[in-house]
Amino acid sequence: MKRISILGSTGSIGLSTLQVIREHPEEFKVIGLGAGRNVEEILRQIEEFNPLIVSMATRDLAEEVKSRTTRNVRITYGKEGLIEVATHADADFVVSAMLGFAGLMPTIEAIKAGKDIGLANKETLVSAGHIIMDLVKQKQVRLLPIDSEHSAIFQAIQGERRSDIARIILTASGGALRHLKREELPKVSLKEALKHPNWKMGAKITIDSATMMNKALELIEAHWLFSLPFSHIDVIIHYESIIHSMVEFIDGAVIAQLGTPDMKVPIQYALSYPGRLSLSTERLSLEKIGKLHFMEMDFQRFPVMKLAYQVGNAKGTYPTAFNAANEVLVDLALQERLPIYMIEAGIEHVIQQHQSYADPDLEQILEADAIAREVAKNWAEQQTI
Amino acid sequence: MKRISILGSTGSIGLSTLQVIREHPEEFKVIGLGAGRNVEEILRQIEEFNPLIVSMATRDLAEEVKSRTTRNVRITYGKEGLIEVATHADADFVVSAMLGFAGLMPTIEAIKAGKDIGLANKETLVSAGHIIMDLVKQKQVRLLPIDSEHSAIFQAIQGERRSDIARIILTASGGALRHLKREELPKVSLKEALKHPNWKMGAKITIDSATMMNKALELIEAHWLFSLPFSHIDVIIHYESIIHSMVEFIDGAVIAQLGTPDMKVPIQYALSYPGRLSLSTERLSLEKIGKLHFMEMDFQRFPVMKLAYQVGNAKGTYPTAFNAANEVLVDLALQERLPIYMIEAGIEHVIQQHQSYADPDLEQILEADAIAREVAKNWAEQQTI
Repeated sequence: MKRISILGSTGSIGLSTLQVIREHPEEFKVIGLGAGRNVEEILRQIEEFNPLIVSMATRDLAEEVKSRTTRNVRITYGKEGLIEVATHADADFVVSAMLGFAGLMPTIEAIKAGKDIGLANKETLVSAGHIIMDLVKQKQVRLLPIDSEHSAIFQAIQGERRSDIARIILTASGGALRHLKREELPKVSLKEALKHPNWKMGAKITIDSATMMNKALELIEAHWLFSLPFSHIDVIIHYESIIHSMVEFIDGAVIAQLGTPDMKVPIQYALSYPGRLSLSTERLSLEKIGKLHFMEMDFQRFPVMKLAYQVGNAKGTYPTAFNAANEVLVDLALQERLPIYMIEAGIEHVIQQHQSYADPDLEQILEADAIAREVAKNWAEQQTI
Repeated sequence: MKRISILGSTGSIGLSTLQVIREHPEEFKVIGLGAGRNVEEILRQIEEFNPLIVSMATRDLAEEVKSRTTRNVRITYGKEGLIEVATHADADFVVSAMLGFAGLMPTIEAIKAGKDIGLANKETLVSAGHIIMDLVKQKQVRLLPIDSEHSAIFQAIQGERRSDIARIILTASGGALRHLKREELPKVSLKEALKHPNWKMGAKITIDSATMMNKALELIEAHWLFSLPFSHIDVIIHYESIIHSMVEFIDGAVIAQLGTPDMKVPIQYALSYPGRLSLSTERLSLEKIGKLHFMEMDFQRFPVMKLAYQVGNAKGTYPTAFNAANEVLVDLALQERLPIYMIEAGIEHVIQQHQSYADPDLEQILEADAIAREVAKNWAEQQTI
C-alpha cells in the first residue's frame, strides 16, 4: 500500500488525485492533505479519507476546521504546516499539486525527507530545475511527472534506452484563443480566455494555455525531467489534445501516448508506476473522433514559446524570472486588473530587465523570483488600461 | 555482432533487411541467403555481403549462380537448401521473409535449431500458431515481429506488464480500393488493385491489402504473438498508415507507434532489439501531414475481416484453410485468371467446405493446407469470368 500526502488537495489536481485514491482503497492511503482556504471541501476530505495531518493557509482557517471536525487529525497551517504535511514520517509518496512557485519549498523538503514525488507543479522544475534534479539524485527518490504531456513522454520511454531518444515532441492544443490572430487579442475578455477547448482545469493554467505559457513552462520542465537539451525538444500544435506527447527515437520510430483528456490517467500512472491499475475513465475512440489535426508551432502568434527557448538556453535565474513574471501577471489578469493580451509583453519586459545569477543557489532563486515579481507588478501598474 | 540468415533475400522485405545490414556493418553480418529465381539480384548480394551459404529455388538456378560467382560460397537449392540456410551453425538470427505458407517449414527448422527469428512471414503463425509458439517457448528463442503493425504493438508494450494490456488496435489503411463501394468492385482491374496508397510492397501483400486479407492475417498473427483472445484485438481504418498500431491499457492510456511508412524501421527494430540503432529513414513530420483520419472497420465492405474473427475463434485448421485459399486465389488473380473481387467469395467457399482438425499437428496442418488449395483451385475453375 502506498501512503500518500497531497499538497494542494482542494485544487483541480488534488481532487482528481483523491478520485484515483477512492477507486483503489486497497492500494492507496491518504496520510496528509495540504489545502488552502476551502474549508468545506477539506472537511469533506477529512471525513472521507481520514488523514493524519491537514494544513490550511492560515491559523484562523485551521482553527475553523479543527472546531468543525470530530476526526482525530492534526490540523496545522502556513508554510511550516505544509512542510509538515510534505515530510510526515508515515507518508512515502507526495503529490505536489500546489499552484505556482509556492510549491517549490515543500517539494524540496519532501525530497530531502526521502519521499517519492508525483509532480504536477511545473513551476518547481522551471524555477529550480538543477537544484531539484541534484537532490532527487542525491536522495535517490523517484520524481514522477503528473502533467499529461510529461507523463505521456515518461510512458513512451518505458523499456527504452535514454541514449536512443532523438527528440521529444510536446503537443499543444493552442488554448482558448487559438482561433484568433494576434491583432484580435486586445478585444478578448477574461471569460473567453478561460474557455479551454479540451481540458477542464484550474483558472491559472487555463490562462497559461491561452498564452502558450503553459507549454513554455512544460518545455523547461521537460528539459529537466528528461535531461535533454532544448534543441531536442519540439512543440507541435495539435487541436484535439488526444496525442498527449511523443518521443522520436534514433531509428525514426515515434512512440506516442494518447487518450481522452482526463488528468486521472497521468495522476494514477504516477501513483501506480511502474505498473498500471484499472481506472474508470472514458475510453479513447479514434473512430468517433475521426480526425486529428497538427500544425507547426507559430512563434509569431505565441511569442512566449520563443522566449521559453531563449530563457531555457540562457539558464541562470532567467527561467525563474520568466515564471515569476507570469504568475504575477496572470494573477492580475484573473482579477481583471490587466488584459490577457498584455501578459506576454509584461513577461518580455521582466526578462529584458532581469539580472541573472549564473548557477544560482536556492537563496538566489528566491531573490530572483521576488525581484521579478516586483518588476512585473510595477510594469503592470504603469500600463494604462 | 549479430550473424543473420535471410529467407527470401531477393523479395521486398529481404532487400530492406539488406539495406539495414548495409548501414550497420559493425553490428550485422550476413551468413545465409535464401532466394528464389532472381539470379542477377542474388549475384549482386553475394558480391556485396559475402555469405557462407545461398539457396536457390531449383538445381538449375543454383548451377547458374555457381558458374557466375567467384566467391567462396556454398550454393544449394530447393526446400532442403532453404532449411540448410535457416539452420546454418554460424547464424544466430533468421529473418523469415518468404512469401506465404512456404515459409513455415524453414521457420520451424530455424526455431528447432535455436535461432532467434525476425518474422515477416505472417502465414507461418496464421497456419500453425500453436505449434510455433510452443516451439518458441520450448527452445527459448526470441520471435520478433517484422510486420509494421506487430512491431508497433511490440514497441508499445516495452516496459509494460502483459496483464496491464486491455486491448490492441491494429490500424488498416483500407488498401488500394478503399474509395470503392462493394458494388463497384467487379469493374476493378489488377493494375488498380496493385496501387497501394501508402506502402510500396510486394504484389501479393498489396492485393491482400485491397481485400483486407492482409489485416485479417495480421489479426490472427497478433492473437498468437501477444497471447490475446480475439475479443481483445480491434481493427480501425486509418488512411494515412502513420499510426502503425496501438495498445490500450487497463487505465485507459493508449500507446501508439508512429512513423513514415518504411519497412526498414520494424526490420531494424527486430535486429537491434532490445536497443535501437540510428537509421536513415524519412523523419515523421505531423506538421506536414496535417491531418490523420480514422474510421470504424466496415465488416460489410470487407467481409474477410469478419471471417478472420470467425476462423480465429473456430481454431483447428480453419485459419490454415483461410490462408491457403487466399494464397491460391491471389495467385490466380495476379495471373489475371480470377478477378480481384472474387477472391473473397472463394475464401468463404473454402471455409464453408472445410473439415477442420481440432488441435492439429503439423502433418494435419499440411494436409488441411493442401486440401484447401485444391478446393480453392476447383472453385476458381468453375467460375465463369
